Amino acid sequence: RIMRPDDANIAGNVHGGTILKMIEEAGAIISTRHCNSQAGEPCVAALARVERTDFLSPMCIGEVANVSAEITYTSRHSVEVQVNVMSENILTGAKRVTNKATLWYVPLSLKNVNKVLEVPPIQYARKEQEEEGKKRYEEQKLDRLETKQRNGDVILPVINPEPHTVGYSQSSLIHLVGPSDCTLLGFVHGGVTMKLMDEVAGIVAARHCKTNIVTASVDAINFHEKIKKGCVITVSGRMTFTSNKSMEIEVFVDADPFVDEPRERYRAVSAFFTYVSLSKEGKPLPVPQLLTETEDEKRRFEEGKGRYLQTKAKRQAQMQQAAQQ
Amino acid sequence: RIMRPDDANIAGNVHGGTILKMIEEAGAIISTRHCNSQAGEPCVAALARVERTDFLSPMCIGEVANVSAEITYTSRHSVEVQVNVMSENILTGAKRVTNKATLWYVPLSLKNVNKVLEVPPIQYARKEQEEEGKKRYEEQKLDRLETKQRNGDVILPVINPEPHTVGYSQSSLIHLVGPSDCTLLGFVHGGVTMKLMDEVAGIVAARHCKTNIVTASVDAINFHEKIKKGCVITVSGRMTFTSNKSMEIEVFVDADPFVDEPRERYRAVSAFFTYVSLSKEGKPLPVPQLLTETEDEKRRFEEGKGRYLQTKAKRQAQMQQAAQQ
Amino acid sequence: RIMRPDDANIAGNVHGGTILKMIEEAGAIISTRHCNSQAGEPCVAALARVERTDFLSPMCIGEVANVSAEITYTSRHSVEVQVNVMSENILTGAKRVTNKATLWYVPLSLKNVNKVLEVPPIQYARKEQEEEGKKRYEEQKLDRLETKQRNGDVILPVINPEPHTVGYSQSSLIHLVGPSDCTLLGFVHGGVTMKLMDEVAGIVAARHCKTNIVTASVDAINFHEKIKKGCVITVSGRMTFTSNKSMEIEVFVDADPFVDEPRERYRAVSAFFTYVSLSKEGKPLPVPQLLTETEDEKRRFEEGKGRYLQTKAKRQAQMQQAAQQ
Repeated sequence: RIMRPDDANIAGNVHGGTILKMIEEAGAIISTRHCNSQAGEPCVAALARVERTDFLSPMCIGEVANVSAEITYTSRHSVEVQVNVMSENILTGAKRVTNKATLWYVPLSLKNVNKVLEVPPIQYARKEQEEEGKKRYEEQKLDRLETKQRNGDVILPVINPEPHTVGYSQSSLIHLVGPSDCTLLGFVHGGVTMKLMDEVAGIVAARHCKTNIVTASVDAINFHEKIKKGCVITVSGRMTFTSNKSMEIEVFVDADPFVDEPRERYRAVSAFFTYVSLSKEGKPLPVPQLLTETEDEKRRFEEGKGRYLQTKAKRQAQMQQAAQQ
Repeated sequence: RIMRPDDANIAGNVHGGTILKMIEEAGAIISTRHCNSQAGEPCVAALARVERTDFLSPMCIGEVANVSAEITYTSRHSVEVQVNVMSENILTGAKRVTNKATLWYVPLSLKNVNKVLEVPPIQYARKEQEEEGKKRYEEQKLDRLETKQRNGDVILPVINPEPHTVGYSQSSLIHLVGPSDCTLLGFVHGGVTMKLMDEVAGIVAARHCKTNIVTASVDAINFHEKIKKGCVITVSGRMTFTSNKSMEIEVFVDADPFVDEPRERYRAVSAFFTYVSLSKEGKPLPVPQLLTETEDEKRRFEEGKGRYLQTKAKRQAQMQQAAQQ
Repeated sequence: RIMRPDDANIAGNVHGGTILKMIEEAGAIISTRHCNSQAGEPCVAALARVERTDFLSPMCIGEVANVSAEITYTSRHSVEVQVNVMSENILTGAKRVTNKATLWYVPLSLKNVNKVLEVPPIQYARKEQEEEGKKRYEEQKLDRLETKQRNGDVILPVINPEPHTVGYSQSSLIHLVGPSDCTLLGFVHGGVTMKLMDEVAGIVAARHCKTNIVTASVDAINFHEKIKKGCVITVSGRMTFTSNKSMEIEVFVDADPFVDEPRERYRAVSAFFTYVSLSKEGKPLPVPQLLTETEDEKRRFEEGKGRYLQTKAKRQAQMQQAAQQ
């Protein structure tokens, strides 16, 4: 679809969250269709995880986004979907790949939302495809378990913070979950959640460096718990790390089932977003260094640095491999 | 209501689809109100057909759209509504008619959606009004039957198409039907469908001529089948004909009731949109000729040419008539 | 227009904020049109103040809102607009008045946004109308000055608050101002701000009493400062007072012109919203009493009680007057 003014920031760059939402919608459609392709209980595919996603180049207002999706692996209870986003300037005809994302879905019964159904197996062209898929499946399963454990943290407010400290840029928003945010099952679309997360992360980044910022990448996101219609969700973000030209922001989503439900507030999702600051000509600008004050902030900064160096090393290895081929 | 940036393309011209959606909402309100004006089963008016609509002059961001609707004919089971759209520049006070549209609605029972109810008759000021209405009613009925038969076609993707061929500009989008797209009966508003159709047609036109384009007219649209909440709809468009200064695009809407329904994908709507290309000063530009390759494409081009010449002849006859009065 | 699921809470009651937004759009159109009705500099009317507004009866999904507006007084630099909202059930034909609101607008030059232009005078049917209007004008002018002074307060976060305390239900959201939120001058529509304020107030009310809640009334709202496109706005709400069956919530709007602007965060708007809690049958429910802890909270509770008793006395006087006529 055509990118509109409301999909973008004031510099005309489309929000990463808008793109994440389109990706998730395509993934949800193809996996729901697949899971209903055999006679049996009708079901809706629910997003369980999005693998790390890079935003290769910013999309602009007036461009057309082409989203294509393909199922690349099925386990007994989950579906792996590969989604590609191409941006097309319909005036010049120029096209470029802007995103590649991998998503995992789980089919939930339409009659009983707590029942996970079986997924019809797909046919693989080559034996290795199935094996590689299985390996990816095992890896993400492990990672999901790990993240679940580190999820206890809350963001505490700071009074009169200094510029460039963590407290200065941290932000949170609340959103009342309406009918348009939800699937047929009455649970929030994963894409809606990701859009709000990107919105908060973008505000944290802009508050820190006070320039035009764009999403560069999103860490793997695990959806631990479903969020129901009528909940209030609180999306909070704080900066964890800055390199010379990038900022890492941690985002939490907490759900508050406050009407007619005895349940306490719970952590539904968390993830790391990476942002870069762009000049008016679209070139990356230097980012002010994050000032860490508490022990926890220093520890998170080091952890963020670790993730940053790991990603950098991985990317260089890929580039060398590509150069050798 | 005031036209906002999101209602318009990057040149500031309001999308034809936004206007079609407002027209349909006005039509749905007045005909639902009329059909419930006598004691009896409560019902909701569903759009059955929109007559050919011309976009007389483009509307711009910041202008106010005034929409007025009037019931002009009732048959036993259908209502004809005439809708006029005026665009008003509230800064200068200038007003102009931008659209006149005729829509046909059918009352469906709120309790049983497959039951068509009876329409309370209206009073005619003059006997001839009723007779003219009846003639229009018979004509559209015939036309609806005809269109139903030609509806089997699909749009196949083309690899590496040449510029200005049909394959080069053809486009499609998918949309998951959400609650806000639907009436009280849980079926998609006709106006929502038309807005998506105009969006796809606009992308096809822009891909073909790579300039700023605006909707000039929409052929009669028949709504053969209802589309339910939770469906995925695929809207596809391909260019069928070009004159020196206009492009005709055929648009199909297919619905996929993929959850909870054993039903196959079906064709719900189809229509022809005509676009013109505008310079920065708002003047019509020449359009590159469409290159037809297959037998089917050549046949459709000739059929499009037929429709184009017929419309042109009709318009000239009207102008002569107006000149003689 | 027809009320959609997205306009309402899960019980089907249309949000007060949706209605305030429609009211403001109607007011902005009629006053902009009036201020441009004489030759002179083109201008856009900006909302300066909304008088106290009562929500007489809740509107529901599927109903049609009819909004009508009339200019009732003009001073040299401001316009008073009276807006009435009728809700119509198009299935039964039943209509009822849901809102009456009075708004004040000021014409700002399209060329120089800091220049307030002169308003063309209107004709009054009777001499007394002009005098009564002048009285209302003087009263609101005084009230605007007063509110400006009390505007220094901020909402501080509370760690682990007890249920029914002020800290327990207080909430805030952030919103990045996009192009569709703005007028031709690039400033946020008053109606957009009021919708966000109602959203936060509604979340505060629901957190306090954990039931279905609806807006009962909104105190006079003064718009002290314009908010520009690209700002981040923080909307915060805290409960100030509860009676047996109503809750008063104070809402602040702060603007953060954080990109490309040297300016500090500033208070743009503040107001009091009153909510009631409704049972499934639509009957008012008792509200848990607000627990005040600090001196400030106790003072605000007493001030809220003062406003509550004053409004109650005024309403009783009006009813007696009406009974005598």
